[in-house]
Amino acid sequence: VESKSDQSLLELMSEFHYADIAEIIDELNLEEGTYLIKLLDTERTSDVLTELDEDKREQILERLSAREIAEEIGELDTDDAADIIAELPEERVREIISQIDDRQHARDIVELLRYDEDTAGGLMAKELVKVRESWNVLTCVKEMRRQAENVTRVHSIYVVDDEDKLKGRLSLKDLLTTSTKTQISEVYIPKVDYVRVEDKAEEVARVMSKYDLEAVPVIDEIGRLVGRITIDDVVDVIKEEAEKDYQLAAGITQEVEADDSVWQLTKARLPWLVLGLLGGLGAVFIMEGFEEVMSNPNYRSLFFYTPLIAAMAGNVGVQSSAIIVQGLANDAVKGSLLQRLIKEVSLSLINGGALALLVIAFGFLINQPLEVSATIALSMLAVIVVAALIGTFVPIILDKRGIDPAIATGPFITTSNDIFGIFLFFYIAKVILGF
Amino acid sequence: VESKSDQSLLELMSEFHYADIAEIIDELNLEEGTYLIKLLDTERTSDVLTELDEDKREQILERLSAREIAEEIGELDTDDAADIIAELPEERVREIISQIDDRQHARDIVELLRYDEDTAGGLMAKELVKVRESWNVLTCVKEMRRQAENVTRVHSIYVVDDEDKLKGRLSLKDLLTTSTKTQISEVYIPKVDYVRVEDKAEEVARVMSKYDLEAVPVIDEIGRLVGRITIDDVVDVIKEEAEKDYQLAAGITQEVEADDSVWQLTKARLPWLVLGLLGGLGAVFIMEGFEEVMSNPNYRSLFFYTPLIAAMAGNVGVQSSAIIVQGLANDAVKGSLLQRLIKEVSLSLINGGALALLVIAFGFLINQPLEVSATIALSMLAVIVVAALIGTFVPIILDKRGIDPAIATGPFITTSNDIFGIFLFFYIAKVILGF
Repeated sequence: VESKSDQSLLELMSEFHYADIAEIIDELNLEEGTYLIKLLDTERTSDVLTELDEDKREQILERLSAREIAEEIGELDTDDAADIIAELPEERVREIISQIDDRQHARDIVELLRYDEDTAGGLMAKELVKVRESWNVLTCVKEMRRQAENVTRVHSIYVVDDEDKLKGRLSLKDLLTTSTKTQISEVYIPKVDYVRVEDKAEEVARVMSKYDLEAVPVIDEIGRLVGRITIDDVVDVIKEEAEKDYQLAAGITQEVEADDSVWQLTKARLPWLVLGLLGGLGAVFIMEGFEEVMSNPNYRSLFFYTPLIAAMAGNVGVQSSAIIVQGLANDAVKGSLLQRLIKEVSLSLINGGALALLVIAFGFLINQPLEVSATIALSMLAVIVVAALIGTFVPIILDKRGIDPAIATGPFITTSNDIFGIFLFFYIAKVILGF
Repeated sequence: VESKSDQSLLELMSEFHYADIAEIIDELNLEEGTYLIKLLDTERTSDVLTELDEDKREQILERLSAREIAEEIGELDTDDAADIIAELPEERVREIISQIDDRQHARDIVELLRYDEDTAGGLMAKELVKVRESWNVLTCVKEMRRQAENVTRVHSIYVVDDEDKLKGRLSLKDLLTTSTKTQISEVYIPKVDYVRVEDKAEEVARVMSKYDLEAVPVIDEIGRLVGRITIDDVVDVIKEEAEKDYQLAAGITQEVEADDSVWQLTKARLPWLVLGLLGGLGAVFIMEGFEEVMSNPNYRSLFFYTPLIAAMAGNVGVQSSAIIVQGLANDAVKGSLLQRLIKEVSLSLINGGALALLVIAFGFLINQPLEVSATIALSMLAVIVVAALIGTFVPIILDKRGIDPAIATGPFITTSNDIFGIFLFFYIAKVILGF
């Protein structure tokens, strides 16, 4: 690729979509990537920049001058522009902003930088088409034509009052079929879905996907229209949200990718492993208390079953918590706590009962005394019921307290259920077998 | 809600969005729900139907006549209509189709029913605006106006040749700024992203979200334009895809929700639990082979560590596999297998080393002989390395063979790593301690 005949390279690149060019640059080394970025014309590079891997982008931006970056982000919609420079040091940002020729664009970007990236404010763009209710259709069409120049794709026309407060939206059809003298206030649709600038990104995603919206207006604390969010930005939120829950369930604390450095991967994985280790060491403590049992040849086989008990407690806990966490995320957990309690108990009695029969059958197979097999089966059943209850109710309680229930999946639930399960197992066995 | 004053109920409902009405009906019992559906006018009910929970919808459809259903789906876009009746028995579908007044609409729905719901064909709708390259701008505008009547929102204008083959797209701006005599073939943009009718739904989602497309045309085997897919349909695919992977990782075999029946939940959960049980019983077998060790008071504490070893093997396996599965889904797994091997080994040596030190420290604390602690630490380290390799390479191998790598997460990897880990643990201990 890098035999450096600029002209042929440019021709080749002109065939590609900017997302593909971004992928190519992600693969190249830093010099080659920067070289290519500088080679392409601004309009295309700016799009390529939005698609690049974050780390790569940061490195390439370091090698561009403030003026060059200002030119790139001058081409972008305000939301993408703000996302790109949000990662840079504050001083650099100021320098870049001061180099942007379009002052309104620069002011808009500065405004967007103020918002937390996980909120509606962080997702929105300033580019939108808005008209005042006091205008007539003719003024409105003129103004729209002017505004539409800065907007890549017009999703909706929003109607505001003289204080910029969102009043409703305008259908293009109505606009074109009414007389040019008609006042907007007579034709606009006063019902419009909106989100607030401080709403969480997940909430925006939920609203947009529930109501099948392609774009949604954003209002500030006092109802003024300040921006709009389009569905493509929300698709990324939905994907990230799903990946985050998945990673929490898998015991990874922060967003990592397969290609991150060993050090980043260690930081993401070690904490949960230490938690698991502490759980395991807790189990060692509990079993030490029952060491005497090892001297009894009839009962010492109990120790062979500890990994089985731990695995069952963990698996059942993860299953229950995953279903609840997903249900909470989709707003699909209904009914009273008592109903849920009855359901989980009956569910785990059915599952546990079936598994208990298998354990007893296995006991016959290896000529284990029936009383031992029955004890193991019974305590396993108890462990499964308790594990299911923990898996169900810990996420519900966390959610009620406003904590992300997804942290109670994966290693967290496995570890606590491991300790609890093994304790319960030996304690029940002790009561039944009387050692 | 159901005090049955029709008029006031209707007024109340007219305030709600159809997605909210669907939620209300999901909560109501069957009679009330059906009653409400019949009460609302067709245009709104049809939208409500698309948003209903599947089970509920099926039950309500059973209580409506073929004629009533035909009226409802006559109002819907072809893709939503096909989705709704796809669940019904074949004979009923035929009856409903025959009752649809608009014959073209009926034919389109029948065509869509032919496609697998997990493909581009199953996602697409027939409603689109297409023009022939041989037309001039005037004919084109006339035709577009006619076609646009059936299309809720025009995303793009597609250009086809006389055989209906997709040639490109037309920008609205170009169309409005060129003379009415100009031929379309002179102004259209020949570059257009498209998908094939047999492409997998996930592939469609990947393409649309990579290139930020709001709509994409679908072509058949010989290049003819047969439909279009919009981003809102793809949002559902992305969500379902993420949920499926999450559930597989959590040990749930089929799509279930927190509010499904106990029997459905059992079917979804029991199979993985049985797998976990078999793994646990496998571990029992292995430990029986080392029963003699229990008579040695110095070494028998090894048995206390089996849940710890199993937990570590499981956790490390799940972490590694989750990262790889996510990487494979996002096309982010690059580099050679050897590089990945070196990376995973060094990563698990770092993590395992840190954990091994903790185990030795713990041994001091409980006055365990150093040789025993060191043996446990060392074999745990080995188990962690092996578990990470299994967690990494099993999904990669499955993916290479065209099997969904997500099945190799969760209980599958935990169970196999449990058995393997415990075997390795005792075997290494045997070699070092010489029992």
